[in-house]
Amino acid sequence: MKPMGPIPRWFTAEGGMLLLGGCGAASLVDEAGDTPLFVYDLDIVRATIAGLRAAMPDVLHLHYAIKANPYAPLLEAMAGLTDGFDIASKGELGAALAAGMAPDAISFAGPGKRDDELRAAIQAGVTLNLESDGEADRALAIAEAVGVRPRLAVRVNPDFDLKGSGMKMGGGAKPFGVDADRAAALASRIIAAGADWQGWHIFAGSQALDAGAIIETQRETLALAARLSDAVGQCPPLVNIGGGLGVPYFPGDEPLDPRPIGLALEEAITMAPDILEESAFAMELGRYLVAEAGVYLTRVVDVKESHGERFAVVDGGLHHQLAASGNFGTVVRRNYPVAVTNRFGAETVPEPVTIVGCLCTPLDRLADKVMLPEVAPGDLIAVFMAGAYGATASPSAFLGHAPALEMLVEA
Amino acid sequence: MKPMGPIPRWFTAEGGMLLLGGCGAASLVDEAGDTPLFVYDLDIVRATIAGLRAAMPDVLHLHYAIKANPYAPLLEAMAGLTDGFDIASKGELGAALAAGMAPDAISFAGPGKRDDELRAAIQAGVTLNLESDGEADRALAIAEAVGVRPRLAVRVNPDFDLKGSGMKMGGGAKPFGVDADRAAALASRIIAAGADWQGWHIFAGSQALDAGAIIETQRETLALAARLSDAVGQCPPLVNIGGGLGVPYFPGDEPLDPRPIGLALEEAITMAPDILEESAFAMELGRYLVAEAGVYLTRVVDVKESHGERFAVVDGGLHHQLAASGNFGTVVRRNYPVAVTNRFGAETVPEPVTIVGCLCTPLDRLADKVMLPEVAPGDLIAVFMAGAYGATASPSAFLGHAPALEMLVEA
Repeated sequence: MKPMGPIPRWFTAEGGMLLLGGCGAASLVDEAGDTPLFVYDLDIVRATIAGLRAAMPDVLHLHYAIKANPYAPLLEAMAGLTDGFDIASKGELGAALAAGMAPDAISFAGPGKRDDELRAAIQAGVTLNLESDGEADRALAIAEAVGVRPRLAVRVNPDFDLKGSGMKMGGGAKPFGVDADRAAALASRIIAAGADWQGWHIFAGSQALDAGAIIETQRETLALAARLSDAVGQCPPLVNIGGGLGVPYFPGDEPLDPRPIGLALEEAITMAPDILEESAFAMELGRYLVAEAGVYLTRVVDVKESHGERFAVVDGGLHHQLAASGNFGTVVRRNYPVAVTNRFGAETVPEPVTIVGCLCTPLDRLADKVMLPEVAPGDLIAVFMAGAYGATASPSAFLGHAPALEMLVEA
Repeated sequence: MKPMGPIPRWFTAEGGMLLLGGCGAASLVDEAGDTPLFVYDLDIVRATIAGLRAAMPDVLHLHYAIKANPYAPLLEAMAGLTDGFDIASKGELGAALAAGMAPDAISFAGPGKRDDELRAAIQAGVTLNLESDGEADRALAIAEAVGVRPRLAVRVNPDFDLKGSGMKMGGGAKPFGVDADRAAALASRIIAAGADWQGWHIFAGSQALDAGAIIETQRETLALAARLSDAVGQCPPLVNIGGGLGVPYFPGDEPLDPRPIGLALEEAITMAPDILEESAFAMELGRYLVAEAGVYLTRVVDVKESHGERFAVVDGGLHHQLAASGNFGTVVRRNYPVAVTNRFGAETVPEPVTIVGCLCTPLDRLADKVMLPEVAPGDLIAVFMAGAYGATASPSAFLGHAPALEMLVEA
């Protein structure tokens, strides 16, 4: 028997059936017409954002990194719930604009922006987070060619990382941004070239559950922004301090309390050097805003036994939820939280069960030797923590199965 | 500096430009209209299959597991080059039939076949490799309902695995097939129910580079097939002995010589017990047939330096070639073979370079600190070993970039 991650606190049941947006999971599947189905509960997103806003300084902008989940109806809702979008491609630019986000509240980061992407972003009036001197040259040349004054920020590769983060984006040699010791020179150069300088983008890491580490990183980030701005001699219109707030996926993970982070950030902003006095500050979050709101529903096709072990085979799998299979950026496979939707909260049976996807590969394992209530063909399995990096971060064409359905719900 | 895997022996250059199907890589990109581009060289596929056929016993059927690469023009060619297709979903059924493969030369394996998939397969007249007693019950009921005598084989979970294989599909508790000690009973039951029994499917593992281990596994597979057939009391029409032949991806990997495997298999078939005398035998291969024939071409967007390390940023990445980034089923990241197409064979420069994809994540690394000739923006990078588990085994929608282009070439 192996443990699984914690089921997010938001979920309840009625008559043993998991509720999503006030509806039974099975009736949502009926409405969608098939499984597998991703359900995103907008009320959970709203509550998460409300909790975060209550914890954070009033002046802080909340940006949504849409790569976490670009499902169009969710994006439309997020345009009203957040203060800006962060994008990473021309495709995401189109999605962000279609969702109704104002161009001047959109910023575009990514180490490999092609000329056609730079052109589309400059023409649309979104901010480019410059990743290198070479990219700056290309952006300035394209802006001149199209006759638009470009909105340009400088992405900084900080000399520190976010301790305990799942993904380190700073500290040492990195493909992201410009090394801190060259960032001010680049900003001065683009200002001199006549660009509309937007400030700094400093992203040290993501998916951290240690509030102390996040607080420390945010302090370092503000100090770095102030140092760089002093060197430029101008107040940066915006300091994007990155994200970093993690969510609990695995056994032993504890949800992060944003309140001490907000208090410390308020103090850090208040105490910040004068050069930042007129600056706006933004935090850029993806999974923190949406991961807990999503559930992946997949139907049990077969229950079988092999050499004394019990397997439940479902009609979904890693082609829709690669991260839950443990095959995306993790070294050791651990179990996401899962449940039998139609026996939610029921007593577990004594024998563990392994939930495997329908793909013909041993990699396709959604839960390894977990304790669950009875599982039978026809049952719906819920894989939680599916609101971020699910459908679009998985190899959906693998083995020729249909893509998962998606649905946004609210009570 | 870190080593990379061996560039497949097929590739040459002309005037310093990598040739693919007799054409320069850059001109193929011009023809396709953009990068990233997967190019599959049909001549290499043909040569690989010819070499394998020459090595293997004449009686052996070669099947292609289309999950490795279902690109439609390639599938059409494979229908003429192989003796059967193995599929894993209703979507692949459609692709196999569209490619012109005869239904009675198609077999369908997969632990989570849904009722609609069983129905489509039975109506099309393809063979189902049954994965469990429960699936057998469903298949028989559906066959009766649609009024078709179903072609059913039994997939066996063997008590042995393929030593040294990248993916073990047998030995111990597995979600695939029926445990060996119950397989004969299932075959007898479906025969008694009036089904058209097709024999056995025994797949012990894949991606092995140790000829001795493959030979040993094939002997065990034939012995198991004979034992099970004796218990049933009937000669199996077909014994699918699985695949297992690997390809060299990584530093130190040596290409497999199929000749000793063929000689040993010839002997094993010749010496097989009488119950297999009338049986046909098939080997089911995916990546062995196509991996070396594929090259992923991606253009350098930026070359930058960070803390003394050199990075080349390309316009492709893990959204098209997840396996090359080391994020799909591998614990330790190792380098696939890569080259600068327009300086193929040129002298390397002294400083290593890290090739990263365009995605805004530290996971997107296509080659880590490799020694290459000069690399500059605009250059085309070739990632080899991209013919199998590339485009369809990668999260193509991740970060909103366009899917890769694909092209089949021949001289």
